Amino acid sequence: MTENVLIREVGLRDGLQIIKAIVPTDVKMAWIRAEHAAGVKEIEVCSFVPARLIPQFADAEQVVAQSLRLPGLTVSALIPNLRGAERGLELGIHKMNYVLSVSEGHNLANVRRSVQESLEDFRRIAHMLRDIPEHQRPILCGGLSTSFGCTIEGDVSEDRVVELAEMLAVAGADEIVVADTVGYAGPAAVQRVFKRVLAAVGVVPVAAHFHDTRGLGLANAVAALNAGVRLFDATLGGLGGCPHAPGATGNVVTEDLAFMCETMGFQTGIDLRQIPAIRAMVAAALPEERMAGAIGVAGLPKNYQPVHLTT
Amino acid sequence: MTENVLIREVGLRDGLQIIKAIVPTDVKMAWIRAEHAAGVKEIEVCSFVPARLIPQFADAEQVVAQSLRLPGLTVSALIPNLRGAERGLELGIHKMNYVLSVSEGHNLANVRRSVQESLEDFRRIAHMLRDIPEHQRPILCGGLSTSFGCTIEGDVSEDRVVELAEMLAVAGADEIVVADTVGYAGPAAVQRVFKRVLAAVGVVPVAAHFHDTRGLGLANAVAALNAGVRLFDATLGGLGGCPHAPGATGNVVTEDLAFMCETMGFQTGIDLRQIPAIRAMVAAALPEERMAGAIGVAGLPKNYQPVHLTT
Repeated sequence: MTENVLIREVGLRDGLQIIKAIVPTDVKMAWIRAEHAAGVKEIEVCSFVPARLIPQFADAEQVVAQSLRLPGLTVSALIPNLRGAERGLELGIHKMNYVLSVSEGHNLANVRRSVQESLEDFRRIAHMLRDIPEHQRPILCGGLSTSFGCTIEGDVSEDRVVELAEMLAVAGADEIVVADTVGYAGPAAVQRVFKRVLAAVGVVPVAAHFHDTRGLGLANAVAALNAGVRLFDATLGGLGGCPHAPGATGNVVTEDLAFMCETMGFQTGIDLRQIPAIRAMVAAALPEERMAGAIGVAGLPKNYQPVHLTT
Repeated sequence: MTENVLIREVGLRDGLQIIKAIVPTDVKMAWIRAEHAAGVKEIEVCSFVPARLIPQFADAEQVVAQSLRLPGLTVSALIPNLRGAERGLELGIHKMNYVLSVSEGHNLANVRRSVQESLEDFRRIAHMLRDIPEHQRPILCGGLSTSFGCTIEGDVSEDRVVELAEMLAVAGADEIVVADTVGYAGPAAVQRVFKRVLAAVGVVPVAAHFHDTRGLGLANAVAALNAGVRLFDATLGGLGGCPHAPGATGNVVTEDLAFMCETMGFQTGIDLRQIPAIRAMVAAALPEERMAGAIGVAGLPKNYQPVHLTT
């Protein structure tokens, strides 16, 4: 029985949001098309933050419109607030990723609101979506940043993570993302927290979003897989990172995570043989950025075989 | 109940053996002393291969003699054959690391012998040691390279790994090391193989030796911990690597592995706050080498606390 693991590319959002150089729309689309062709089924293509805050996403409308033409692709975007959700709805994105931080200090620094205010905004978005006919309604995803610790506050309560996950699910989240935004998680905490969140939110799917800041990204992914998680965010070449840790690695590397899942017998649907060309293309467009990841350097093992569903 | 995980530094052997530049004895000793001071309890300080084959280890005698003066340190060395074991015995090393490859092709390429011949050599070494009084007898460690795949032969039989581990234990190994020499292992195979080897060799301790060539080093360490392994080889800054994969990462990173174990509640005894200074010192001595590892770049989390035994 081959199980699927869904790896969602978030490099165009989490990777590009901290990069100063504006990546041309054509390059973004070449990246999206290439990953789609390689079998990536869900891509977070942009963030609906105002362009004056992050000019990188000034072309959000064009990127979304062009991405929606790719057959079978789930097109998602980060929506910072109700206004972002309205924009996403107008454009017809498939999935909206709303994020709040478990840590008050981080939420305040990130979106200048209390966690309570962020929750209320989430409820307003869920309420707005409730009136839309089901076949047109985007998937609403509720994300919990700093679920394993916070660069501002340090420890984060695991009880609070579980409580907030439940509150998001009750408020109408179709999916929960539990995120180690700052790279503080270890495998033991990951297994504990994901088991509790999975049990708490019932049938709502739970995804893991890990950063590799302290090298434990894939180790944490093993722990999450052991806890039953089958949805992961990742970025090509590990793009992304933390403005507070210069030179540190960014998100978990899409291709390394996919390779790991395949060694464990999970099917990702991603053709890893197409990755080197995509990496080269993105690296050429981002000469200032260091691409992380081991598969991209060492290549696939001699005995590598992609996992295919027998169905 | 805090459990110990023993991380053995093998950078002075596995790291330095592929480096062209000869590292001065003083630098090696400064590195060994600094790691000993930081709480590393076992260091593989050299290899007893002939200096004409690897000039890096021409100072093996001096390095061993000086390392033996460090209180509480277990001084180990790689012994390629009976002659190496005799040298190690004369010098009084605490532990001898003998290695053979599970893959015939790799063993032939590496030591120009069949696996059967390597096994017979191991038996001769064990026999030689048997006559030495127990309190003077070095620990004999039998290592299995290419246990998870081979760059020459591809797949490696898990049955054969278990069989060879048993043969080494029966022949007199005080410890077994199962090694992913080329970075082909994934967490599922790791958990499977270590569980089987641990069951097969009974009371003989089993260590894991992982390379991070394809980024899965720490993920594999989680799987090995889950299987019950508490002994790991690692190298400072992930030094080492594979001559066949230029630019690829080397061994699992000592400090990142120690950090991960501590996040899981294991005590390593290593004071991670001392690592940056040691990394800087070694990096200055090896300007051509890239130091890997995330903790060395991102630093420890704000809420990091070392795990201490309550006893």
